[in-house]
Amino acid sequence: MQKYRKEGDISYALGTELTLELLKTHPEETERVYVHSKQKDNEIARLILSLCRQHNIEVVYSDKAFNIVNAKENCYLMGVFRKYDSPIDPAESHIVLVNPGNMGNLGTIIRTMTGFGLKDLAIITPAVDIFDPKVIRASMRAFFEVNISLFASFEDYLMVAKPRPVFPFMLDGAVKLQEVEKPAHYSLVFGNEATGLPAEYHEYGQAVVIPHLDTIDSLNLDNAASIAIYEFTREKFR
Amino acid sequence: MQKYRKEGDISYALGTELTLELLKTHPEETERVYVHSKQKDNEIARLILSLCRQHNIEVVYSDKAFNIVNAKENCYLMGVFRKYDSPIDPAESHIVLVNPGNMGNLGTIIRTMTGFGLKDLAIITPAVDIFDPKVIRASMRAFFEVNISLFASFEDYLMVAKPRPVFPFMLDGAVKLQEVEKPAHYSLVFGNEATGLPAEYHEYGQAVVIPHLDTIDSLNLDNAASIAIYEFTREKFR
Repeated sequence: MQKYRKEGDISYALGTELTLELLKTHPEETERVYVHSKQKDNEIARLILSLCRQHNIEVVYSDKAFNIVNAKENCYLMGVFRKYDSPIDPAESHIVLVNPGNMGNLGTIIRTMTGFGLKDLAIITPAVDIFDPKVIRASMRAFFEVNISLFASFEDYLMVAKPRPVFPFMLDGAVKLQEVEKPAHYSLVFGNEATGLPAEYHEYGQAVVIPHLDTIDSLNLDNAASIAIYEFTREKFR
Repeated sequence: MQKYRKEGDISYALGTELTLELLKTHPEETERVYVHSKQKDNEIARLILSLCRQHNIEVVYSDKAFNIVNAKENCYLMGVFRKYDSPIDPAESHIVLVNPGNMGNLGTIIRTMTGFGLKDLAIITPAVDIFDPKVIRASMRAFFEVNISLFASFEDYLMVAKPRPVFPFMLDGAVKLQEVEKPAHYSLVFGNEATGLPAEYHEYGQAVVIPHLDTIDSLNLDNAASIAIYEFTREKFR
């Protein structure tokens, strides 16, 4: 077993919850499941083993394999899977992250967007590695539910997305989030944690601001994204 | 210089932004400012030094003092301050966090709540150490703007807070966030990251749910809190 490598073909679902979701959603990509001697023989472990049998997935009992895992993570079962393509649906609403730099934020945004019914995430590179186990962990089991496509530029993204209103979130946006008319399909675009979106994003659509006091320079990226997602889906969940 | 200790009387504002805010808001509690030889002679550094002169605060030029700081944090100026009391205003609206366990989440919630005009945070212990430099860092400069009081139980908190509607956020809340009538003053109550609020919190007020799909078990704590804060202040910032 090797530590996770960005350049490699495989990644890891650490723990029973993530491994169960991996097996439910991507059994074909699952190469192997490792079980540590400290793993309890509980309901979720039995369900995982039965899915492995069903899909002919190798189960390896080994403690050594878990050397790749941070000791304090308390992880005694993991799934090894081949990185897969699951491109965004061009017709659906999209979250677009431009140069996201923090794995925890990325995972959390994935968790929140799927919770509100948005399953398609476009990422403009350079960006953190989407398959890093830290991203997967932070997403809880939502990582295996989303479609993700990477694009080298926003123009490349626009060539794939079906025409729709694009809303770049910017501190100097002219329209308040509360006042935006919410269309059936849309793209919500957020910049990098430290730098936000460059000024040229004003050209791609109506820039939107989440109004707040100037006691803070800006909201944290994943808080801004979750507030925006909440507001755009607010009536649907009413 | 010692590494930060929870039991100690002092904490650190790491970097120029935080130190400037410390000096602006709490000059009496600031004991000393350390400057590293790599600190640039820029506008914010000059402003900090002038505030130190004005308030008779010692400035020490030392690289060794920065051994307490994680190397990758790129911190070349820091303020040392005595932990201070800044109790919540009993009459204002409050955010109440019950047993928060993650310093980054706590700092981010502080950042978001002050951005939406909420300045009073009650914390029910056990909880992470509010003065840990990690909390302060994650709050950006907002940490020095909020009032925080610790309570051993929710009953202790209720004895201090002026009567107002209390809204515990719970997955089995009967009222949706969108539908809650928002009073002028309120308490929004959130549980621990892993366990949420215990069932007895139903007795303290109208439990509220943020409706989402069951593709996720729950929202991340700081995303849930920021969505709730946004919704409760939505009309004010319109």
